[in-house]
Amino acid sequence: MSEQELGITTSKEHETGEWYAELVQKAGLADYAPMGGFIVTRPRGYAIWERLQNHLDTWFKDTGVRNAYFPMFIPESYLEKEKDVVEGFDPEVAWVTHGGYEELEERLAVRPTSESIITPFLAQWIRSHRDLPMRVNQWCSVVRWEATETKPFFRTKEFLWQEGHTAHRDAEDASEETMTRLEQYERLYEDVLAMPALTGRKPDHDKFPGADTTTTVETLMPDGKSVQAATSHYLGTSFAEAYDVTYVDEDEEEQLAHTTSWGLSWRALGALFMTHSDDQGLVLPPTLAPTQVVIVPIWNEDSKDAVLEYAADVAAELDEAGVRVELDDRDNRNPGFKYNEHELNGVPLRIEIGPYEVEDDELTLVHRPDGEEATVDREGAVETVEDHLDTIYAKLYAEAEQTLEGEIREAESREEILGTIGQHGGYVKCGWCGDEACEVPIKDAIAAEIVMVPLAEDEEPIHDECAICGDDAEETAYFAKTY
Amino acid sequence: MSEQELGITTSKEHETGEWYAELVQKAGLADYAPMGGFIVTRPRGYAIWERLQNHLDTWFKDTGVRNAYFPMFIPESYLEKEKDVVEGFDPEVAWVTHGGYEELEERLAVRPTSESIITPFLAQWIRSHRDLPMRVNQWCSVVRWEATETKPFFRTKEFLWQEGHTAHRDAEDASEETMTRLEQYERLYEDVLAMPALTGRKPDHDKFPGADTTTTVETLMPDGKSVQAATSHYLGTSFAEAYDVTYVDEDEEEQLAHTTSWGLSWRALGALFMTHSDDQGLVLPPTLAPTQVVIVPIWNEDSKDAVLEYAADVAAELDEAGVRVELDDRDNRNPGFKYNEHELNGVPLRIEIGPYEVEDDELTLVHRPDGEEATVDREGAVETVEDHLDTIYAKLYAEAEQTLEGEIREAESREEILGTIGQHGGYVKCGWCGDEACEVPIKDAIAAEIVMVPLAEDEEPIHDECAICGDDAEETAYFAKTY
Ligand SMILES: [Zn+2]
Ligand SMILES: [Zn+2]
Repeated sequence: MSEQELGITTSKEHETGEWYAELVQKAGLADYAPMGGFIVTRPRGYAIWERLQNHLDTWFKDTGVRNAYFPMFIPESYLEKEKDVVEGFDPEVAWVTHGGYEELEERLAVRPTSESIITPFLAQWIRSHRDLPMRVNQWCSVVRWEATETKPFFRTKEFLWQEGHTAHRDAEDASEETMTRLEQYERLYEDVLAMPALTGRKPDHDKFPGADTTTTVETLMPDGKSVQAATSHYLGTSFAEAYDVTYVDEDEEEQLAHTTSWGLSWRALGALFMTHSDDQGLVLPPTLAPTQVVIVPIWNEDSKDAVLEYAADVAAELDEAGVRVELDDRDNRNPGFKYNEHELNGVPLRIEIGPYEVEDDELTLVHRPDGEEATVDREGAVETVEDHLDTIYAKLYAEAEQTLEGEIREAESREEILGTIGQHGGYVKCGWCGDEACEVPIKDAIAAEIVMVPLAEDEEPIHDECAICGDDAEETAYFAKTY
Repeated sequence: MSEQELGITTSKEHETGEWYAELVQKAGLADYAPMGGFIVTRPRGYAIWERLQNHLDTWFKDTGVRNAYFPMFIPESYLEKEKDVVEGFDPEVAWVTHGGYEELEERLAVRPTSESIITPFLAQWIRSHRDLPMRVNQWCSVVRWEATETKPFFRTKEFLWQEGHTAHRDAEDASEETMTRLEQYERLYEDVLAMPALTGRKPDHDKFPGADTTTTVETLMPDGKSVQAATSHYLGTSFAEAYDVTYVDEDEEEQLAHTTSWGLSWRALGALFMTHSDDQGLVLPPTLAPTQVVIVPIWNEDSKDAVLEYAADVAAELDEAGVRVELDDRDNRNPGFKYNEHELNGVPLRIEIGPYEVEDDELTLVHRPDGEEATVDREGAVETVEDHLDTIYAKLYAEAEQTLEGEIREAESREEILGTIGQHGGYVKCGWCGDEACEVPIKDAIAAEIVMVPLAEDEEPIHDECAICGDDAEETAYFAKTY
């Protein structure tokens, strides 16, 4: 491949959509599958997903969650038991109608989400208050037949996610669970993806079908649109009633359980790639980068042996210390080509080693996000490299934070909402009466919607009046365009 | 639950099928799903699968394999490009025909295996000999609509597995890859599942559709039937031809790649449970047991505080050292109940701690597989426990080995094959002409088949004549009944 074919040719700032599509393909993250709406997740993309999984899965297990696996198909009659769910998902379900040459007696839904197959089993496994809380999670793929344009990791008909499902003795326990998971998602964004995040509740008309409360993590993309980055639902007793999840309490009384569900999908990857990457390609935080450090030796005939030996020694020392390091000693590529390739592929830190570094017992470090260079002592390389990786993480976080800061504005009228989002993007918060009808004119005009309201239900609205209809405000609404 | 409900009521020896079904449910490994042929893998079962995955995945990655994820659906036209594959799987494919309220223009197969969707992408990603070997693997579920009786982990319409797909420059490289994976599967059985295994080739008429060579790991179950425990296929150039996987070699010539595929499914779990477990319940090797050691304190009112403190201290020390230990200090269950429960659930080692142990600074250890007891010093508990866990592994392996030993017999006639398998089960090896027709009478009479022939194609057959037809023998056939 020539260098031109290798590099990204579009501009993140001016053609965000085209740039993103090019990034995903050229950085080897994903390809489009032959069927519209599906993608193939390539090894570099999948390795990042595996690291993300590993963080979240460890936290889940540390807080009482156990993984399980439920069938990918759900009988139509099961889906229908919770009518809110089936109404919510009906238009998006892929149906299996034939097995081999036979038509099935009952159609099977490819799971769009698994409440309706998991909850009946929770009902079966739970007998007494001693069985509560019960928490299961599965990492799997789900299918939602949405007829919108494909955007890898953001909008695909099949996507990878985890879905947690828990049952509790009362509303308090279940609400606490909902918040625990929301906070773990927030932590994932803040501490692993280097992305600041907002947390809030979805307005009633945008809750998960059947949920009492849907909480959400929202992150702002560089183009000013908000991404729903994870959700955690308190389902009240609606699913427990539909599927008969009861337990015998300490007084031998039968009680309805309260349930939750919560999920994070590979959309988190989309948000990650979109946030940090640039016109040179992928930018990754060191926490998730498959290769954290690449060593590029620079030699001529005379210096080759010394440079390569020195470089291999540094690589071995870093590897030994658990740094994910790659020594790029390919003979058939020049250093410039290698720089471009590793920049495209998102390696956070490059170490350049030439005759001068060897002579002076030094290393030249280059940060991927901003090209900052530092010449450092060869001695103490592990600690120095780890410091620089931390610095790179902090830089990424700071830049994303700067994007968010100042992007939460206030408005007191419909015109102000439209004008502010139209001009700046970002979030606009305003007083809201709570009526979905007041979202409609904003949605119709500029495709912005209420992405969240504050977590605390009793929080005073920022203004006394609904910015749209002028009635008494019940809540503060955050309007934004969305992915 | 009463103790009677808790325990297993059937006999492994006399009612193997019923016993296995009871074991799977009562040890919390899996439940039957509402649709025939599907199961729900419960947390204890899934945790064992996760550990198994972790072993195999680490070995794969250490030997150049990278994980990826391909769509769960395959367009019918893609499946048809490799006619052998479509013929092989057609009767077993589940078809998605509708997305939402719309009928799809082209039916989508739920993947029965992914050669036909992965190979076209290998073709796209491979340009030059420098891109080879290319290896991708995915952990996913596949669906095969077989109309046989459900047997959890052995026979289910949906099952979890991994499927590796690789492309190489020539037959030698690809054959070597096939053997590398076969050996990793064998190692998994020997070193992780505590099961001795045989390796061989499938006879030509039982190869994977389109394969040049199908190699297999076979394990013998206690009831004398063989389980195909993993397979690794050298696919020659048939898939490369069908999907156009070519590369440019050093001389700028276009060449066809040689491909392989290899897979191991959760059938490995079925074989594991079936092999080691007994009438008291699940028996697991310490390598895979979610809980390796359970500490059961035995107290009366006077000794309670001292016993619990001592037990907690031992638990903390083991936990610190990385042993997966659980302290069962439940107040509302007596020690006998706890013993039964942990035996049912397959905890390899029990530590009993009562007032005498506290007084004498000792521990009483009990091995799950055979009830062997040992009283050991409290000091050095970690090392002692680790030794005992190793001993337990060795015991399990030795017992499984004993089952296999002496179960490979020879026969020189059709009657002898039938009689020997009929009487003893196990494997019968004999000379074979290579003709599928000679398998038919054995299959028809006692449902035994040729499960493998030796790996080396040039190995001399053990007898000069085919035991069935009397023609010249080409190979040694291993007949056995199968799962
Ligand atoms: Zn209003
Ligand atoms: Zn014959």
